[in-house]
Amino acid sequence: MILETDSSKSNGDRAKFVNNYLLYLLAAASEKASAQFHAEVRKAGLRVPEWRVAACLYDSDKMMITELAELSLMEQSRMTRIIAQMVKRGIVKRTSDGNDKRRVWVQLTPDGMALVQALVGDAKDHERALLSELADTDAARIKIMLQTVLNRLEKT
Amino acid sequence: MILETDSSKSNGDRAKFVNNYLLYLLAAASEKASAQFHAEVRKAGLRVPEWRVAACLYDSDKMMITELAELSLMEQSRMTRIIAQMVKRGIVKRTSDGNDKRRVWVQLTPDGMALVQALVGDAKDHERALLSELADTDAARIKIMLQTVLNRLEKT
Repeated sequence: MILETDSSKSNGDRAKFVNNYLLYLLAAASEKASAQFHAEVRKAGLRVPEWRVAACLYDSDKMMITELAELSLMEQSRMTRIIAQMVKRGIVKRTSDGNDKRRVWVQLTPDGMALVQALVGDAKDHERALLSELADTDAARIKIMLQTVLNRLEKT
Repeated sequence: MILETDSSKSNGDRAKFVNNYLLYLLAAASEKASAQFHAEVRKAGLRVPEWRVAACLYDSDKMMITELAELSLMEQSRMTRIIAQMVKRGIVKRTSDGNDKRRVWVQLTPDGMALVQALVGDAKDHERALLSELADTDAARIKIMLQTVLNRLEKT
């Protein structure tokens, strides 16, 4: 348990805040779960931001840098550098639109697709293990709840 | 909606991964919710890491630097610098143990306590607004689920 320290019993009757605070629980669960899976990402030869990009491209076939930056929670300038690295290593390629040459798309190469497909499988196994202590209905429900919270955040 | 981009419909029959991936949902919800509340933290004159420390001390009256670092998801060397700053600004004070002088505790000052009490109130309001689109039972449930996932993570 995180919060059971020697000193944690001394605040008298005031109800505990942190351990029951949504933003703390989200941050702690996210950070610890990601740290665990990211060890597997690095073993597969990808850096974490590259994994995020590859996972987005796995879903969408081709995307623009602006879209990738938004989805991967990153600045666009940083995303441009990451894509350049991934192009060099043969994981993704750039293509341009037939109608509008200024529109540059990013897309997985066949090698990149094979790599991300294997990692998506690993990610699903890891997720299943993480959720294994929740009842089946709760495991499906937690994602729907998080999506609802996210939608709310995007509206405000 | 995050994932509805122009290009996101083109991956044929392959089921969408990212938008339904627990680690993505946790990271996105955590990052966006925190960014929103941290604007209020800064308005109150605290930096984000200071708010984390203050919230932990609000729960536990006094804690050691090692405990604070673990709870606040931070390196100990960084925590030591943060505490030094907070001492300077009169938000926390250091005390030592009667029995063991090497044991140094950190504790909120009365000013620090007043500041954090106000912010904890704001944090609870913000949390309530975030959870307002979930049914009451779900709002309580999402925290229990996150705690279960966290406990699982701490065991592996």
